[in-house]
Amino acid sequence: MTGDFVLTGARLATMASTDTPYGLIEDGAVAVSDGTIVWAGPRQKLSADNSAWEQRDLGGRLVTPGLIDCHTHIVFGGNRAMEFEMRLNGASYEEVARAGGGIVSTVSATRTASLDDLVQGALPRLDALIAEGATVVEVKSGYGLDRDTELNMLRAARRLGELRPVTVKTTFLGAHAAPAEYKGRDDAYIDEVCIPALRAAHAEGLVDAVDGFCENIAFAPAQIERVFKAAQELGLPVKLHAEQLSHQGGTALAAQYGALSVDHVEYANEDDARAMAASGSVAVILPGAFYTIRETQEPPIGHFRTHGVPMALATDCNPGSSPLTSLLLTMNMGCTLFRMTPEEALAGVTRNAARALGLKDRGQIAAGMRADLAVWDVGTPGELAYRIGFNPLHTRIHEGKQ
Amino acid sequence: MTGDFVLTGARLATMASTDTPYGLIEDGAVAVSDGTIVWAGPRQKLSADNSAWEQRDLGGRLVTPGLIDCHTHIVFGGNRAMEFEMRLNGASYEEVARAGGGIVSTVSATRTASLDDLVQGALPRLDALIAEGATVVEVKSGYGLDRDTELNMLRAARRLGELRPVTVKTTFLGAHAAPAEYKGRDDAYIDEVCIPALRAAHAEGLVDAVDGFCENIAFAPAQIERVFKAAQELGLPVKLHAEQLSHQGGTALAAQYGALSVDHVEYANEDDARAMAASGSVAVILPGAFYTIRETQEPPIGHFRTHGVPMALATDCNPGSSPLTSLLLTMNMGCTLFRMTPEEALAGVTRNAARALGLKDRGQIAAGMRADLAVWDVGTPGELAYRIGFNPLHTRIHEGKQ
Ligand SMILES: [Zn+2]
Ligand SMILES: [Zn+2]
Repeated sequence: MTGDFVLTGARLATMASTDTPYGLIEDGAVAVSDGTIVWAGPRQKLSADNSAWEQRDLGGRLVTPGLIDCHTHIVFGGNRAMEFEMRLNGASYEEVARAGGGIVSTVSATRTASLDDLVQGALPRLDALIAEGATVVEVKSGYGLDRDTELNMLRAARRLGELRPVTVKTTFLGAHAAPAEYKGRDDAYIDEVCIPALRAAHAEGLVDAVDGFCENIAFAPAQIERVFKAAQELGLPVKLHAEQLSHQGGTALAAQYGALSVDHVEYANEDDARAMAASGSVAVILPGAFYTIRETQEPPIGHFRTHGVPMALATDCNPGSSPLTSLLLTMNMGCTLFRMTPEEALAGVTRNAARALGLKDRGQIAAGMRADLAVWDVGTPGELAYRIGFNPLHTRIHEGKQ
Repeated sequence: MTGDFVLTGARLATMASTDTPYGLIEDGAVAVSDGTIVWAGPRQKLSADNSAWEQRDLGGRLVTPGLIDCHTHIVFGGNRAMEFEMRLNGASYEEVARAGGGIVSTVSATRTASLDDLVQGALPRLDALIAEGATVVEVKSGYGLDRDTELNMLRAARRLGELRPVTVKTTFLGAHAAPAEYKGRDDAYIDEVCIPALRAAHAEGLVDAVDGFCENIAFAPAQIERVFKAAQELGLPVKLHAEQLSHQGGTALAAQYGALSVDHVEYANEDDARAMAASGSVAVILPGAFYTIRETQEPPIGHFRTHGVPMALATDCNPGSSPLTSLLLTMNMGCTLFRMTPEEALAGVTRNAARALGLKDRGQIAAGMRADLAVWDVGTPGELAYRIGFNPLHTRIHEGKQ
């Protein structure tokens, strides 16, 4: 699909208005020119100009914005299946660590991987996301934890976007953990490795946003703040893994720096929700990690609703705490585990996921948006979150191309 | 793939011996003749006779028995996405019921569906299972609750097995619930509808096993026992949905009748486990329903291990409590939610699932078994349960045919 065309015979879940659930338009039409939506609305109102364009009838299928996975770690070396198996066979944390498990094993495998290894390893994960209608995927660094490997991860991410018809947004996550060689010297790691690597990556055009992990097992707010200041100097937006396992105050810090998003947030409180609402930060809910680590503290969905914090949903695809490559299952988990509504779930992987990435031209079916669309063999948009482990995708369109 | 051939260059997770984890054979070979495995073992030991056959090198990939889903309700009319959405938007049970939700809506949609409607509706669900390497799928009746529709569901199940290269095993589940027209007259339903329908279905060759739902919201043990007696008279094996929501004593009853399996069993106790071990009944664990209804009582995996009760895992695919069509995700859920090991999970969808269906020639890679095989792009069998929402299937072979 290139050139000018009009999609007709479609039920549109535009996600562009909140007047009707899902911004639904029955018997809708979408006019696309040069990869951009130039008009979307009820078919009867299609203008004579557009109706002369090539028409493609979708047989009454449901059309949504292309799905957006706004939080992934799909670039990494190795996998952690051995550790998964050891744990389930009763191995202690120490035994797993002695066998080389944990994030250390991923860092080690990522450091020894070539750029091509990283790309080839990530492609099947990216392809799984694409097969379910993803048109935008965010990819973080954070398993290199040295300058060269952090940059290599981001180069791999950019390469993924060239190899597949999908928009890749890169996030620098040098402040993911201190590597073994900086054990007990977190401050030195931030100053000597993380911030210089960020500057080098930015100089190479590899960074769309800057992230960190604020947690008692990772970095303290004061350390994260130094990274945020460096990002600010470079004119880069920030986001943060915060309040996942405990309340450390990362959310308040992130809001203070106008973060695009604060992610995980199981332990965020109502004040945090107020701060996020004020800063316009999106709450990125990651049920795959909650499920995998058997967390019991649910994110404060009620506070986010009350204070109008936009909520996104993402896979958090990573080899340890969320080896998840399905946005549809993520939607189901958001509904089942956190009682999000199916409409919130769909907004979470479209409109609000775009916002979590600072993308103003994605995530909705409306004039001016890039033509990222997913066409589904379902009767209602609610079915997308209802099924478990089933992919009803009919067609995916990225920037106007099928 | 037809005729005689040998698969080589394969790591075999034979599931045929418990001497080594997964019955693993590195650098294995499988000789297949006329759809049956005639030899499986280390490649060096392949006999000269077989080594003259056509060789197909699998490039070091992992081969497991074809997967078996031993508990599904994939034949039904309609779907329950509306109800899922209403509930998540805060509707009460009564409001959902007034809007026509619940099992009543599925019974109503199933009764009005033609045989072809039922088949066409089930095919995408069956295809999703097949796409992940399923070679045997069990299908239950139980949404007709009248003679004609129960038979129609079973005819649809048989038709599915003709339309796709998969072995379908049918289970009569007339004792699923009493329909509206027998409300408050459960005994009359069992005697006037369920048992006569079972006899009619058996006369038509539609029944491989007989099942029931023993629960406070369904049937009491004494009612189930009448169905079991009828099954016994017809020479049909029995199985039972038991102890899902409460402890009703269905497990003990099922064990007494030598049930192939007792399914759900969250509320089963150690005595139940002892009874199942004595009767040789398989515990069919259904994590999709546990997850969907947000159950907190876990099945007594420890008791099943202690007493040597074989455990299977199945999707329980149904429109209400488990709209799940992925056996790989079911394996992950068994590990994540119930701390089953990855090896138990794989045994649960192969060797023990075969046993839950009374199939002596499936579920293992060994001489004499039918050649149902799944070839995977993974390094270790543990990876099959480790990933979430990812399908690494390379090739599926059903009765020797690719
Ligand atoms: Zn993350
Ligand atoms: Zn069932």
